[in-house]
Order: sequence, then structure tokens, then C-alpha cells
Amino acid sequence: MLAEIIAVGSEMLTPFRQDTNSLYLTAQLNDLGVQVAFKTIVGDSLEHLTGAARMALSRADLVLFSGGLGPTEDDLTREAAAAALGIGMRRDNPTFVSLQRRFAERRIPMPPNNAKQADILEGAILLDNKNGSAPGQFLHTLVDAQPRTIILLPGPPKELKPMFADQVKPRLAATLPPRFLARRELRMALIPESTVDDRTAPIYKQYTDVDTTILAHNGEIQLHFECAKPTLAEAKARVDALAEAIEHEMTDDIFSSHSESLDEVVLLMLGMRHLTLAAAESCTGGMLAQRLTAIPGSSRYFLGGAVVYADALKTTFANVSQDLVRTEGPVSEAVARALAEGIRTRTGSSIGVGITGIAGPGPGTGPDEGKPIGLVYIGIADVDGTQVKELHLTGDRERIRWWATQHALELLRRQML
Amino acid sequence: MLAEIIAVGSEMLTPFRQDTNSLYLTAQLNDLGVQVAFKTIVGDSLEHLTGAARMALSRADLVLFSGGLGPTEDDLTREAAAAALGIGMRRDNPTFVSLQRRFAERRIPMPPNNAKQADILEGAILLDNKNGSAPGQFLHTLVDAQPRTIILLPGPPKELKPMFADQVKPRLAATLPPRFLARRELRMALIPESTVDDRTAPIYKQYTDVDTTILAHNGEIQLHFECAKPTLAEAKARVDALAEAIEHEMTDDIFSSHSESLDEVVLLMLGMRHLTLAAAESCTGGMLAQRLTAIPGSSRYFLGGAVVYADALKTTFANVSQDLVRTEGPVSEAVARALAEGIRTRTGSSIGVGITGIAGPGPGTGPDEGKPIGLVYIGIADVDGTQVKELHLTGDRERIRWWATQHALELLRRQML
Repeated sequence: MLAEIIAVGSEMLTPFRQDTNSLYLTAQLNDLGVQVAFKTIVGDSLEHLTGAARMALSRADLVLFSGGLGPTEDDLTREAAAAALGIGMRRDNPTFVSLQRRFAERRIPMPPNNAKQADILEGAILLDNKNGSAPGQFLHTLVDAQPRTIILLPGPPKELKPMFADQVKPRLAATLPPRFLARRELRMALIPESTVDDRTAPIYKQYTDVDTTILAHNGEIQLHFECAKPTLAEAKARVDALAEAIEHEMTDDIFSSHSESLDEVVLLMLGMRHLTLAAAESCTGGMLAQRLTAIPGSSRYFLGGAVVYADALKTTFANVSQDLVRTEGPVSEAVARALAEGIRTRTGSSIGVGITGIAGPGPGTGPDEGKPIGLVYIGIADVDGTQVKELHLTGDRERIRWWATQHALELLRRQML
Repeated sequence: MLAEIIAVGSEMLTPFRQDTNSLYLTAQLNDLGVQVAFKTIVGDSLEHLTGAARMALSRADLVLFSGGLGPTEDDLTREAAAAALGIGMRRDNPTFVSLQRRFAERRIPMPPNNAKQADILEGAILLDNKNGSAPGQFLHTLVDAQPRTIILLPGPPKELKPMFADQVKPRLAATLPPRFLARRELRMALIPESTVDDRTAPIYKQYTDVDTTILAHNGEIQLHFECAKPTLAEAKARVDALAEAIEHEMTDDIFSSHSESLDEVVLLMLGMRHLTLAAAESCTGGMLAQRLTAIPGSSRYFLGGAVVYADALKTTFANVSQDLVRTEGPVSEAVARALAEGIRTRTGSSIGVGITGIAGPGPGTGPDEGKPIGLVYIGIADVDGTQVKELHLTGDRERIRWWATQHALELLRRQML
């Protein structure tokens, strides 16, 4: 069964806005075993929209519209769907009355245009909108003797998502063969995608009934496994078996086997080991602290730390001697070590992290003269001593800063293994 | 002139990936006065792709394909375009030779499939690809007696963008009436979009020849003005006149009249006034520091600060008395004031900022018992004293943290006006 998603709205044909509902809808449809074959984005023109609807009905079994159900003159999805199907609309009285009630409650007269939100395609079922005024519509019909399902959904994600989940998905599922989907996800950090693929492809290619997707982004590799079977137990058994085989191959490189983020894993490990953490950040300027504190509950294990951007603060907050900064340069193995040790002492944390580097756009100056953009040192101090890692990162300022925090988290994780 | 953009690739029909080239292409086409009327996303199927190409040629004057030009069996854009146009292809010998040379240089035999990257639509011009192997193509032709322009571009943004800018845009411009576009942008923070619209609509509606777009996101409102005229001077005069009229209405609410970000403006103002800044952050956990240090050159005015997530660190790094924390609670007017003053003293900065609040997901506990999620205090201390602002923010943890930093930056800016 093939689906087409038509996102309606001229704002999505500007350089500023993008359709995102289709990502949600695609995930939901895939759950049901339905593949999305086309996505069309079209503006608020009756002619364009009707043409797009006709095309979709000719090439897809299931056509979902998002947007264009509001009360304004620009909201034309209902009209276009009716024109493409060659059918009429009727005004639904209960919907009309409830629209009037909404306005009465706010003591505003209802503008006449609003009434069209009660117009319904002949033969369609109305889908209740709990978070907005425009109801959705669901219609099974024949187009040129082919069975077709047409679904009209409101554009705002907070209206579309619950409507799809509660009212559309069960209806579609009832018409499709029963199918149970199991998913698993493994995550790794800082390993080249090609290395992961070289080592895992011989394994996942044996599981022809499991769909494997490798995604690489921002220093993280995700392996997504998906399997559909007539029972959930069968589907689960297959993705679990594949995940286990890949865990056996990649061992400690895998930081997460149930979709936790690297930040969450580091906090979980700190918690399990009754450890606390503090950070002294120079080039990353608080990004590591910000990533960790984004996780609810992080305050139990992450105490905080210092953003020691100015050299004087390296002394004020992390006991780094100004002599050391002058002789070795702020971006040096020695200063990273001193930052990690100093922040650990000052905060009384079990582990201290120190990060110093050159994020660019300019190369090192003063005592760091001659040191290149992308040179980063990460120090990790604990009760057993201090280790420092030297990195040579590439890319722009934002990328270098992000990857530096990614490396710091991965070093912390490996330290705690 | 209407355009359609066809993004080719099955990965863009999954829940994981999205077409982003079309945002760039839309901005570029709008520059030329060309409107994008449709966007289609289609997978690597010859049948689907050919159908989509036929549809596009029937409804748009200009059809741009991105992706599907590589050497694999799944790369079918050339074949589909030829089929939809009903024309043949010829193998371009110089391109074929240069493909062979690429492989020879790497001492790998060229897989036979790669040769198809040298196939060119009858009558098309080849577009050189400086960052990859697949050349683009540009064709003016007639379809059902209508003039049509067909452009094939590679999918990777770093290949597509320079190819469009250097080779496609000038070719399209030559066929279109000369047109000069001027743009301006005004930015405001933390004002409701509806307030901005109520106050500015009576002004921008008088400028019927200037296109005004209001975008609101993450506590920032942007007003974009765009005007096309036969000369650049005329276009510039119109957007400048409108921008000036709106600046006159909104005065100090506008933080940026030339696209600078709020973070940049705060740093610029610090620089102009020879001031330095430091921050003590509790609930925002380093986010304010991270935002400021993301700007190159920020180290001259932003010294750094402390992430005082744990209560003990509020004393260690910002001199806040533990008595005060116990009696008032860490989330209190008094602690925000003490954090701002303490970090200023400890770092020797001209201005100190202190942020404390309840970001959620749980409400206040211990001495903060009974205080709601979203309660945030921001203290700003300088030579003239300290002011504290109490905020009641809504939304999830991430939103509350972001808005707290947004408020801190806007308070700093207004303080320095």
C-alpha cells in the first residue's frame, strides 16, 4: 500500500518554513506497513491544490492532506479534495453548532467564513479536533474503480498528531493485515560511519527480515533496526537477536542500547557509581555544562563548574597558576590537566573535566601563537590521577565546540566502564 | 514564472531525513523573481520519478531536480527526465574521460555503472561539478509547445549550492527581465507577535511594493522586508524607508536593524561601552555562557563565569551565603541578586548576571517547596546597583531554560541603552 502526503500552505514554499508533519506521519504510516511514496508541498491555490490532489489519487492508495482546513479564504483543502474526487460536500449540523458555541463562549460574533469548517466531503467521517476548531475528515471511496482512502488533517502539529494517533491510526489498522513492528536502536560516538558499516554489515545483512538504517550526525552513529512480523514476540526476537550480535561485535563502542543519549548515559553511570562531576570549560564556554543540565535530574551528579574563558578566571575558579598559562599557553596539555584537577579540588567533585582549545575562526595568539584551529585538550581528573587527550578537530567554531564536548562525554564514559 | 523543485531520494521518504536543498533553491529563485509553486519529494523509482517529472513539466515553467545523479543503479534522475521529455541521451566524451581520470588517479578500475554520469539529455548544457563527480545539466526546450527549463542538480548541498550560484543563476537571470532585490530585517525580543503586528501593520501595509514577512521563534520576532525594482537604488530606498518608519514606531524594542543576533548585539554594546560581563547560572546551567561564547571574539567582553547548579557552588564561586540559600530558597529574588553581585566581585567584571529558577519537570523542593515550574529570577549587577526581574515562564525544561537566557540578554541590552 502506497501513501502520498500533501502538505498545504504557501508559507512552506518560502525559504523560511518547512513541512515537518510529514516526518511524524511517515513514522506512523511505516508502523502500519504503509510506505510513503510521494510528498507534495503546494500553496493555497485551488487550481494547484486540485491538480495535486488529482495526481495523488492517480498514483497512491492513501492520500493524506495536512493543513488548509481553517476558516480563511486561503483554506481550500476541503474544496480541492471534493473537486478532485468529483463529489459534493454537505454542511454538518453538529459541527456548525459547536463552532457557533465556541464563538458565543468568547462573546464574539462568528464571521460567516467560519461556517465552512463544518463542510464535509460526501461519505466522509468527521474526526474530532480536541485542540482546535477544524475537524479532520476520513473517506474510503473508489477513484477510477480503484479503492482510495483520503484523509484531511489540520496543519498545526499539536492538532494533527493526536488526531492521527487516536482516530486515524486505529481506522487504518482495521483495514490492513495485522502486523507487529519491533524497533531497537544502538548508538556509538566518534567512530567513522564507514568503520561501523564495515564491521556491522556482515552481520545485519544476514537478517534480511530486519530493516537496518545507519544514521551519522554530530559525532554520533545510530543503528536503527525494524522488523515486522505477524506477532510482536516474533518481531521483537528478531531485532533483539540482531542487536545482540552487533553488541557482541562492537562491545564497548556502543554507549546506548535503548535510545539513551550520550549525556544521559554519562549521568546514569555517575549515578550508578555514586560519583559527582564538575567541569572547567574554556573554548566550549559552558556547552558541556549546558548539555548535561538539559537532562532532568542531572543536579544529583553534575555539580556545575566554571566557564573560564578569560585567563584570569582559570586561576580564580580552577587554581591554574598564571605562570603555567604564560609558559605553556592557555591551550596546552598542562593547562587542561590543571583545569581538571583544579575544578575537582574547588568543587569537591569525584571527577573533574577541563577543556581548553582553539575553536576559531582565528588561530592561537600570544603564548598560543602557532597552535592551529581545532587543537583541543581534554583533561579528566579523578581519584586515580589525571589523563589528558589531545584532539585535532576540523570544521567551523560551532562544530569544533560541539565535537569537543562529545569527546569529553565519551572519555568520561570510557573512564567509568 | 512558476517553478517546481523535485527532490529525489528514497531516504527523504523515511521519518529520518528531510529535503533541505529546496529552502536554499527557493531563496535563490525568489531573488530572480521566480516563485516556487510546488515541491515534490520522490524516491528512487524510475516509474515514480518519470511520473513526477511529467506532472512537473505540465504545471511549471521551470523544473529543478536535486539528487539522483550519482553512479549507482538507484540514481535515475537523468533517465526519468529523458523519458518524461521523450528525448534521448548522448554520452559526453570529455566528461567520460575525466571520470576515468578520477579513478585512474586513485588507482581503482572504474566500475562500468559510473559511465552513466557522462550521459547528457539531448540539447542540454553540462554544468561543471567542482565538488563531486556528477555534472549538472541545463536544458531549455518546448513541452507541448510551452517553453520549459529543466535543471538537474546533484543532491549534496556542497555540490548543489556552488553549481546553482555560479552556473545556473546567471543563466536564468539572462532569460528573465532585469530585477534588483533589496532586503532588510528588523529584530525584536520577547514581544508577542500579535503586538508587533498590531503596531506595524498600519505602516507596512502602506508599502504595497514591499513584501513583509513576520517570523516569530524562540522569543525573537523578525520582520523581513523585500522589494524588487528595475534598479537596486530604487529597491533599497523603499525597504530603507519602511524599516525607518517601523523603527520610529517600535524604537528601543528593536534590537537589531541589520540582522545581528541578540547575543551579538549584547557583545557589541559591551564593546562600545568598554564593559565586561560574567554570569553565574543555576537553572540555565551554562546556556547563557554557551550562547555568548558561540560568537567569535566574545572573549574580549565576556570573561566567563560559573555554573552553580549545586547549592554549595553558589558559595564557592559567587559568595552567596548558605544562610541566604536556606532561608530564601535557591530560587529567590535574594539569591539571584547575590549571584549577580557575587560573580561580579569574584571575576572583576563590569556587569554580573545571576540566573536561578525552576526549569522542571518537577516543581521546587526543600526551601523552594511550593514554588512553581517556570519561576525564574534574573539579577543584573553593575556599578549603579542591582536589579532583579521575576519571570513566570511556560513550556518544557528546554523552553524555560532558553527563554530565561533570552530574557537575561534582553535585560542586559536594555540596561546598556
